[in-house]
Amino acid sequence: MAKVRVGVAGFGVIGQRLADGVARQEDMELIGVADVAPTLVVQALKERGMPYRMFAAAPDAADRLEKAGIPVSGSFADLIGSVDIMLDSAPGGVGAKNKELYVAAGLKAVFQGGEKGEIADVFFHGYANYAKGVGKDYLKLTSCNTTGLVRAVHALDQAFGVTKVAITIIRRVADPGDTHRGLVDSLMIEPIPNHQAKDLMHIMPHVEATGILVHTPVTHGHIITLVASLKRKPTKEETLEVFRAHPRLRVVRMADGFTTNTSLFNYARYLGHPRGDMYETGVWEEAIGFSADDLMFAINIPQESVVIPETIDAIRAAIPMQTDGAEAVALTNRYLGMA
Amino acid sequence: MAKVRVGVAGFGVIGQRLADGVARQEDMELIGVADVAPTLVVQALKERGMPYRMFAAAPDAADRLEKAGIPVSGSFADLIGSVDIMLDSAPGGVGAKNKELYVAAGLKAVFQGGEKGEIADVFFHGYANYAKGVGKDYLKLTSCNTTGLVRAVHALDQAFGVTKVAITIIRRVADPGDTHRGLVDSLMIEPIPNHQAKDLMHIMPHVEATGILVHTPVTHGHIITLVASLKRKPTKEETLEVFRAHPRLRVVRMADGFTTNTSLFNYARYLGHPRGDMYETGVWEEAIGFSADDLMFAINIPQESVVIPETIDAIRAAIPMQTDGAEAVALTNRYLGMA
Amino acid sequence: MAKVRVGVAGFGVIGQRLADGVARQEDMELIGVADVAPTLVVQALKERGMPYRMFAAAPDAADRLEKAGIPVSGSFADLIGSVDIMLDSAPGGVGAKNKELYVAAGLKAVFQGGEKGEIADVFFHGYANYAKGVGKDYLKLTSCNTTGLVRAVHALDQAFGVTKVAITIIRRVADPGDTHRGLVDSLMIEPIPNHQAKDLMHIMPHVEATGILVHTPVTHGHIITLVASLKRKPTKEETLEVFRAHPRLRVVRMADGFTTNTSLFNYARYLGHPRGDMYETGVWEEAIGFSADDLMFAINIPQESVVIPETIDAIRAAIPMQTDGAEAVALTNRYLGMA
Amino acid sequence: MAKVRVGVAGFGVIGQRLADGVARQEDMELIGVADVAPTLVVQALKERGMPYRMFAAAPDAADRLEKAGIPVSGSFADLIGSVDIMLDSAPGGVGAKNKELYVAAGLKAVFQGGEKGEIADVFFHGYANYAKGVGKDYLKLTSCNTTGLVRAVHALDQAFGVTKVAITIIRRVADPGDTHRGLVDSLMIEPIPNHQAKDLMHIMPHVEATGILVHTPVTHGHIITLVASLKRKPTKEETLEVFRAHPRLRVVRMADGFTTNTSLFNYARYLGHPRGDMYETGVWEEAIGFSADDLMFAINIPQESVVIPETIDAIRAAIPMQTDGAEAVALTNRYLGMA
Repeated sequence: MAKVRVGVAGFGVIGQRLADGVARQEDMELIGVADVAPTLVVQALKERGMPYRMFAAAPDAADRLEKAGIPVSGSFADLIGSVDIMLDSAPGGVGAKNKELYVAAGLKAVFQGGEKGEIADVFFHGYANYAKGVGKDYLKLTSCNTTGLVRAVHALDQAFGVTKVAITIIRRVADPGDTHRGLVDSLMIEPIPNHQAKDLMHIMPHVEATGILVHTPVTHGHIITLVASLKRKPTKEETLEVFRAHPRLRVVRMADGFTTNTSLFNYARYLGHPRGDMYETGVWEEAIGFSADDLMFAINIPQESVVIPETIDAIRAAIPMQTDGAEAVALTNRYLGMA
Repeated sequence: MAKVRVGVAGFGVIGQRLADGVARQEDMELIGVADVAPTLVVQALKERGMPYRMFAAAPDAADRLEKAGIPVSGSFADLIGSVDIMLDSAPGGVGAKNKELYVAAGLKAVFQGGEKGEIADVFFHGYANYAKGVGKDYLKLTSCNTTGLVRAVHALDQAFGVTKVAITIIRRVADPGDTHRGLVDSLMIEPIPNHQAKDLMHIMPHVEATGILVHTPVTHGHIITLVASLKRKPTKEETLEVFRAHPRLRVVRMADGFTTNTSLFNYARYLGHPRGDMYETGVWEEAIGFSADDLMFAINIPQESVVIPETIDAIRAAIPMQTDGAEAVALTNRYLGMA
Repeated sequence: MAKVRVGVAGFGVIGQRLADGVARQEDMELIGVADVAPTLVVQALKERGMPYRMFAAAPDAADRLEKAGIPVSGSFADLIGSVDIMLDSAPGGVGAKNKELYVAAGLKAVFQGGEKGEIADVFFHGYANYAKGVGKDYLKLTSCNTTGLVRAVHALDQAFGVTKVAITIIRRVADPGDTHRGLVDSLMIEPIPNHQAKDLMHIMPHVEATGILVHTPVTHGHIITLVASLKRKPTKEETLEVFRAHPRLRVVRMADGFTTNTSLFNYARYLGHPRGDMYETGVWEEAIGFSADDLMFAINIPQESVVIPETIDAIRAAIPMQTDGAEAVALTNRYLGMA
Repeated sequence: MAKVRVGVAGFGVIGQRLADGVARQEDMELIGVADVAPTLVVQALKERGMPYRMFAAAPDAADRLEKAGIPVSGSFADLIGSVDIMLDSAPGGVGAKNKELYVAAGLKAVFQGGEKGEIADVFFHGYANYAKGVGKDYLKLTSCNTTGLVRAVHALDQAFGVTKVAITIIRRVADPGDTHRGLVDSLMIEPIPNHQAKDLMHIMPHVEATGILVHTPVTHGHIITLVASLKRKPTKEETLEVFRAHPRLRVVRMADGFTTNTSLFNYARYLGHPRGDMYETGVWEEAIGFSADDLMFAINIPQESVVIPETIDAIRAAIPMQTDGAEAVALTNRYLGMA
């Protein structure tokens, strides 16, 4: 079977990681990436010898890129014309404009969480609702927090049944090096419920969810606490088994040195993962406990890379490459090294 | 009736605020404060013209203080010999040694949350268990987080009955200017349950409590989210009424500009409160919501000053100045301007 | 002699401090302050019982303020019509529009550093060029950094002659509670020369100045290092004497506990200064040294309050209340308690 | 010629990077690394399949490591007995104890900047004093800041002659994930001169150096400003040529997006460098200017990895593998990809 040809629009925080993730899938071919300016990410691509071909994502982009010495392989139309599906990780709002081009070209596309819901036929999560995405043209991924939340809540739901969940999101306010956002010596709170709780209910409609979000002045990942009501109260050991069995969750122990969100970022650096990327959602073993019959626990969200696996799942569903979700996520996981 | 004579041991973050708080009570007299070294707090006292008399809290302290130009009014024994009760806010562990002197002098004392539980006859909170402290010799205050938590949970309990609570503490890692503690670009998580949940159960034994604590790199207060199960589910408006009626809670609105923990610190600065002190526990109106029948909400803990009112309540109980808790806290509140 | 009647436009970070500073001058009368919205600063003014009268700084502002329960004493025209001079601390750019109203009313005004240079007849510093401001209609203050820099460099210049200075500004990126600016785990550098070096040369044209500015994720003041070439090389002790003799410089010692910019903020809090305000520029005794014949040292800039004294000097010059600079700054200092 | 066999003691922040650096040298063989506990770095080595052999650096370490599932290849004595030279990157102070073992074994060793000066025969920098290290038994590297400073100052000295330099070090207070050190919302200043100025004079005795150091709450590198007096004043373009020609300096432009220290860290991440390592000292083109005849500029210090090249140079000198410094550093550079 021919490899599915994939393009990536927007070669930034998410786009560069999508490109790497696609390039690792043996049943996909990364045709190229597109951007509008010679950002540091693009300059680094050049210094690496252009392992991915770069296309000009806007009419005047080719000029700007070439002036900066970046070899340009063609226009956005050229890229669109050479692929079976586009992964759109352009800045929020740009994807909506790009969609017009995809529609005109009869091309499928997968959008990131920054776009509005109406952009897509399906609000997608590889584990929780793969079937809904099968054969659809336009899929939108859950945001980084919701992606990780759904992994954990869906796993518990499969095992014990989840009826409601109250979440506290302790969120990084900026990515490393992002100078456009910030917060200094402040914790900023947002109204209840946060959009992640609403999004979780969208993906898992039988769960009642609410939550409070607090921004904090850090860059290396989020920590989320959850209070979950279950149909059957498990033991802590049963809970751990469920989490340990999930290829996209990584149970870690404070006793081993995983005491912070940055521990997980560092561990990925020590593993030699490019950029310190971590695909898994961390779960702290020592933070699992009970509030009477409710389960309380905490997870880590590596915001820069957590959505990569589910986005690749979305390619599998949309084309469709696999109609069975379990088969699809297993392939994604294998190629990404998440055995 | 003669004013109750009060001394303060340890003139640091808490001690200077206790001294101010006592000085504002019309039925108390601040005899003096004691410390061991010419810290910045002590140097500032001198620059202000010594509004409080300074005693040497250790044998060699008088020398150190006088070398730095600080007028010393006497020894620790002199201070102890002149008061009816001591407020001990010495660094954690020192209070235990000081207690031997208090016992020898037949003197009552109130300790802060940093001391071990066994130091005191009663683990005390002015609103939740005043009666237990009446006439007792040694009282220990709840820590800053527990003090604020108990205010809110006790108020809900009085109104609706609280059966269990799951708390997420988003904690400041250091006080302003504290260079001995820190955390940079990291969120540090601790095992479940945190000690605040255990302490809350100590004060309110009929409530089942658990919680997770995360340290964050900020200095101007904590934010705590709570998921509380109540005997009767109130409306949001009923909940707000309970919070608004509490003199030591301050309901604030994000829409008015209270979007961060630092907003509350700043507001206290704008009010002209010394050092930006805030006695009240903030409650965010827009963060009150429901997780099915459970109530979810968020509070602010101004860690430098929140324990002052309850510590003054403890004086009233220990002496005892009032045997009725409601009468006692009302007096404390009036003198502190928390109408 | 009648007191000079002063109004303040913009009751924010700087405006509230200007109002306090003017209110302390026995030869001035604060007529009122103006703003456009019920910010936290304005809400706190109301909670304090409106010690200053509030005027509506824009046509629709009265409505907004009154809806928030703020008593409004009149329009901006009313305020302008009742004063001899306006201190304009509106957000950068607004001052230029306000100036049209002042010109139309034949009213003098003093602008802050955020406005463009052309707004004023004189770029003013109380110590370095008071004479230039005498009797002028429109004066613009130096920015917070330049104000503190000029204090120190002018003092050295008077004593030893300064020929050139190279400065490194380690700048706070936001004020406490400012959620609109930030920087997380990053040091952001700006091109050489920074505007403060250029501004210093504007005020002291015989000094050659350059410098590099680095933004850091803190809120409690800046630290600036200077490498100064002097006509006569002083001893360290002579240098200290010059700094100690200056009422607007405060020599502090790391050995006494002044190890950070926040130490100075805290010290002002301990002194009971409203909001932790510090008018003086700190100078670290242990950071004074020599690079061959050049003097190297470091100063602290409390950005929220450092410009208050020089702004009050500007009132004295513009009216003019004093024609002699030494007399003028001495009065400002006396009323502000900077003996 | 046989490859030089190298061991690394201490597999932490520096040690893991030294191991990688040695492994890339085609004329060296990394025999193994040693540590005392299953830190996250060691756990990651295991998850990577033990690309380097691990030795137990203390008597009880083998037990601890094996309990954590880390395969142990032998004792510290075994490692020492199998190598020609040790790179000691154990925590400060431990190297001094290790040295006794090296001496007893007649083994050469290279120590890091955290050790005291007396540990070594030579205080070494590959570019500035290679000849002094040739054939010596014990070499100590300059610290991260001094290593980068000397690169830049030595390059200027070779081209134009440097007589004096005044430096301002804006230093990260902790490494990513380091929870033992921190500073929150504070800039901490140290007395003049800082040790880096003294160390620079040790390496380049004809230069007079002084400087002030300020700690800041960041983790991704330092920024240092320098004011240098030169025998011949160059143009900015000549200065740039000198910096651009240096394989261990990387001239970057703010206009290209290099606006922060974190930009450089991110760029190394984008390049796919393990852990985001950057061997080069960054120099900002737009921050090069003049203070009269003095040169002012700013450099970046990637503290985690900057000392790796010079440490490898030290192996070359100590053995000696090359007697000519230029030849040695060129080999190090080539194998590290710093063409």
